[in-house]
Amino acid sequence: MPDHTPRELYLDDLSIGDEFVSAEHLLDAEQIIAFATEFDPQPFHIDSEAAKTTFFQGLAASGWHVTAITMRLLVRSLPFASGLIGAGANVTWPKPTRPGDILHVRSRIVSITPSRSKPDRAIVQTHSLTYAQDGQVRQDLTAQLLAFKRKTN
Amino acid sequence: MPDHTPRELYLDDLSIGDEFVSAEHLLDAEQIIAFATEFDPQPFHIDSEAAKTTFFQGLAASGWHVTAITMRLLVRSLPFASGLIGAGANVTWPKPTRPGDILHVRSRIVSITPSRSKPDRAIVQTHSLTYAQDGQVRQDLTAQLLAFKRKTN
Repeated sequence: MPDHTPRELYLDDLSIGDEFVSAEHLLDAEQIIAFATEFDPQPFHIDSEAAKTTFFQGLAASGWHVTAITMRLLVRSLPFASGLIGAGANVTWPKPTRPGDILHVRSRIVSITPSRSKPDRAIVQTHSLTYAQDGQVRQDLTAQLLAFKRKTN
Repeated sequence: MPDHTPRELYLDDLSIGDEFVSAEHLLDAEQIIAFATEFDPQPFHIDSEAAKTTFFQGLAASGWHVTAITMRLLVRSLPFASGLIGAGANVTWPKPTRPGDILHVRSRIVSITPSRSKPDRAIVQTHSLTYAQDGQVRQDLTAQLLAFKRKTN
């Protein structure tokens, strides 16, 4: 199912402090193992039994899987008109994400820095916390996104 | 094909300045579209035609796809004995990654910070540059990884 989310937020529409809440994503062991088998094949991400004797003491999602799910939720919940174009990001994972976790993302606009050379755009810094159903943060993501002004011709 | 890379590097074996070079990964449009359809469904990542009229002027990989491929290459090229356990990371994408790019990762140990409370471990900061075949950097990743001393009993 292609997911062409409507794009509607221009730079003109964004203000520091604006908040955006995503839908939810239910993560299960099958998804964790499928992602990690392709991209992060370590025992604690791909083998529920072997994971028990590791640092994580049980199956845990790859941090990059949590980031990817977060991105999926952001595409729908942060509908920038030109898309979400990231220049960079800073991410931490305060707690492991486990099978059965139901994730959602709360984002806030932290700063808006107009481009010096190109007056039609700015770097918008967003802070996105990925929560599980227990109300605790699984991922803390700050991203620098490119946003454009509405064309006025 | 499960990828149980041998784990062998303990904290005792790591020094600032140590370098590690990964294998290569050939990225194609099919992989770019498959990843983005699941995790980053935006026109410039999932539709070669629609991508032409976007900021990227053609199909480009999701930044998080480049991160995921980088992780796959790091699992083999940075064989920490307890696995690659990330506390956090900082990532930028200086240039888009395109279909046909052949990626490899060069990593360097930047700092080693012993834990104050747990003498058996340290946070190892690594700097990993993901290059394409043109010698230009597609991703610049700094990560904080947990490493453990060899058990001496």
